[in-house]
Amino acid sequence: MSDVINLAKELMRRRSVTPDDAGCQHVISERLAKVGFNNEPMFFVDTLNTWSRRNNQPPNVCFAGHTDVVPTGDESQWQFPPFAATEHDGYLHGRGAADMKGSLAAMVVATERFVKKHPNHKGSISFLITSDEEGPFINGTTRVIDTLQARNEQIDMCIVGEPSSTNKLADVVKNGRRGSLTAFLTVKGKQGHVAYPHLADNPVHRATGFLDALCAEKWDEGNAYFPATSMQISNINAGTGAGNVIPGDLEVQFNFRYSTEVTAPQLQQRVVQLLQQHQLPYELSWVHNGEPFITEPGELIDAVQQAIHSQLGYQAELQTSGGTSDGRFIAPTGAKVVELGPRNATIHQVNECVSCADLDNLALIYEGILERLLT
Amino acid sequence: MSDVINLAKELMRRRSVTPDDAGCQHVISERLAKVGFNNEPMFFVDTLNTWSRRNNQPPNVCFAGHTDVVPTGDESQWQFPPFAATEHDGYLHGRGAADMKGSLAAMVVATERFVKKHPNHKGSISFLITSDEEGPFINGTTRVIDTLQARNEQIDMCIVGEPSSTNKLADVVKNGRRGSLTAFLTVKGKQGHVAYPHLADNPVHRATGFLDALCAEKWDEGNAYFPATSMQISNINAGTGAGNVIPGDLEVQFNFRYSTEVTAPQLQQRVVQLLQQHQLPYELSWVHNGEPFITEPGELIDAVQQAIHSQLGYQAELQTSGGTSDGRFIAPTGAKVVELGPRNATIHQVNECVSCADLDNLALIYEGILERLLT
Ligand SMILES: [Zn+2]
Ligand SMILES: [Zn+2]
Repeated sequence: MSDVINLAKELMRRRSVTPDDAGCQHVISERLAKVGFNNEPMFFVDTLNTWSRRNNQPPNVCFAGHTDVVPTGDESQWQFPPFAATEHDGYLHGRGAADMKGSLAAMVVATERFVKKHPNHKGSISFLITSDEEGPFINGTTRVIDTLQARNEQIDMCIVGEPSSTNKLADVVKNGRRGSLTAFLTVKGKQGHVAYPHLADNPVHRATGFLDALCAEKWDEGNAYFPATSMQISNINAGTGAGNVIPGDLEVQFNFRYSTEVTAPQLQQRVVQLLQQHQLPYELSWVHNGEPFITEPGELIDAVQQAIHSQLGYQAELQTSGGTSDGRFIAPTGAKVVELGPRNATIHQVNECVSCADLDNLALIYEGILERLLT
Repeated sequence: MSDVINLAKELMRRRSVTPDDAGCQHVISERLAKVGFNNEPMFFVDTLNTWSRRNNQPPNVCFAGHTDVVPTGDESQWQFPPFAATEHDGYLHGRGAADMKGSLAAMVVATERFVKKHPNHKGSISFLITSDEEGPFINGTTRVIDTLQARNEQIDMCIVGEPSSTNKLADVVKNGRRGSLTAFLTVKGKQGHVAYPHLADNPVHRATGFLDALCAEKWDEGNAYFPATSMQISNINAGTGAGNVIPGDLEVQFNFRYSTEVTAPQLQQRVVQLLQQHQLPYELSWVHNGEPFITEPGELIDAVQQAIHSQLGYQAELQTSGGTSDGRFIAPTGAKVVELGPRNATIHQVNECVSCADLDNLALIYEGILERLLT
């Protein structure tokens, strides 16, 4: 049985539900220590992270990932027990198989093989492993990055093991992510009885024109790397439940996924302008979930694409769509960041699984990237 | 102390929270029996009603009212205990003082006085008393009316004791009520992740144009008796609470208060047309709470206005605005219906109270109406 699959099973049998690491990082650190890595556990509040590095010279090529997994839901719904790491018909089944203990195993084994072949490789290899990527991402990657920046330790290139592949292994590499910005809007009205509307002020009636304009707005056209910025209303609520009461307030929550053609302050200003055009009394607060980032074609992208093509015979597509990842915390330091991992069809679902052949190929691709960057 | 206030206190000291009558109707029936009324209790499921009548010949002039009251809420918030019926500074305090045990007491005492002066009055006097007007109005007035209709017993003119007065006693008489029609709309979409809007179908985004058109629509202009039909959205809800999930459905509840210029089916058809114009996938259901009714100037209105003017020296304004009442169940039988009762400033609130002088005047006005109609 392959070394990659064995390590993946060892990690998957640990119940590391966010933010619990359940000993996974210790397993990884012991393997890396044997091939010359220095391991630095970093515990913040409730979250274990580990920063491991081999050598000190640049360029520093970093593998980034997380040992935590999302909850299983009802375990009886699973075909195989979610923490048994069962191999069946060429697939490895269990929570974390694709997101992302399989990637972690492939990264570790690729590094071991590379270091044995090239003990005197140029540059450095590092691992940034957290256990809260699936959680509130407060005490994980962002705190490790803060620590590194405080001592001027630089990541030059970073491969995040998030499951980027869609239809087949490595058909998609993420070379950036859109920004994410969330608005919490309250349109103010005056509660009253539906039979006496002149004594009340219905915030829903006030807001319909604004909401229609908000949904119709074109925020930008996107660019070569990003699709057009999109806005989605995720929650809207008004009313007491009673049929004869005009609501006092309307609550609306909406989220932008935005390109590098606009900034968060520009989006905020345009929302406020729309509110003012529609003369709405309102309260508005914002949560900025992350800036957009882009890794343009260059040394890292070339190495990744060549390694994929050499192993699989086809070209990966570069994309910036989809959700956020911890890459958004690493890219602002100046690091070039890509995300490359297994297929994401089953992640966060019952019966999460990964192809064993894909994991073996992924390890060979990761090794091929190191070959191209550090020899 | 006045006979009206004494009877009001006796009724108010009974805790007749909907649908409990708590013996109030028995008190009224005993008083009416002494002046020649035949009492017919009608109990349906959980609700006591009483139909009382003096004489059998037309015209049948009916006093209609309810002995049930809405709950008190936190009794410690009341200045005086809500079922103590405390007289203080010219006001009678307690739950039901204005809605509508005060009116009931005034009706009974007015009738007693009238019958003593005119034992051989023409026509009939009747009382239709229920104990579920504040509840679901299923086993109350509507069932009594069904019983009367089944035996061809007609109410010709009806005075409902609901608190119609706003700034001073009898400044407003309701000579009709708008219809009430409620829509329960579900706009169908497809749930998804905000980062992948092309895989979802946001029902809020679909619906904003429709909602804007719904709020802008002019349903009619009203007429001499009714203000323009009004529509109010009372509840709107979509979303799981999570900020990254596009909702699957949008739920909207809205209510029409409508004039005699439109019918419920016409309003329903126009809503469906708007939905179709905006190409919304939807589910829609309706609850028809009541048809509009109007009592045009004539014998009853004349008698009411003259009685008020003679007692108070000013003219009452006829209105059809405001909420529904049990008048909507009586009017469709062909009865002329008006609502006349004390000031409504404190009804359904903590510290409900009524002016003692107003109740005494109200009894004299009710007596004056009987004088004008039945002598
Ligand atoms: Zn992940
Ligand atoms: Zn009432």
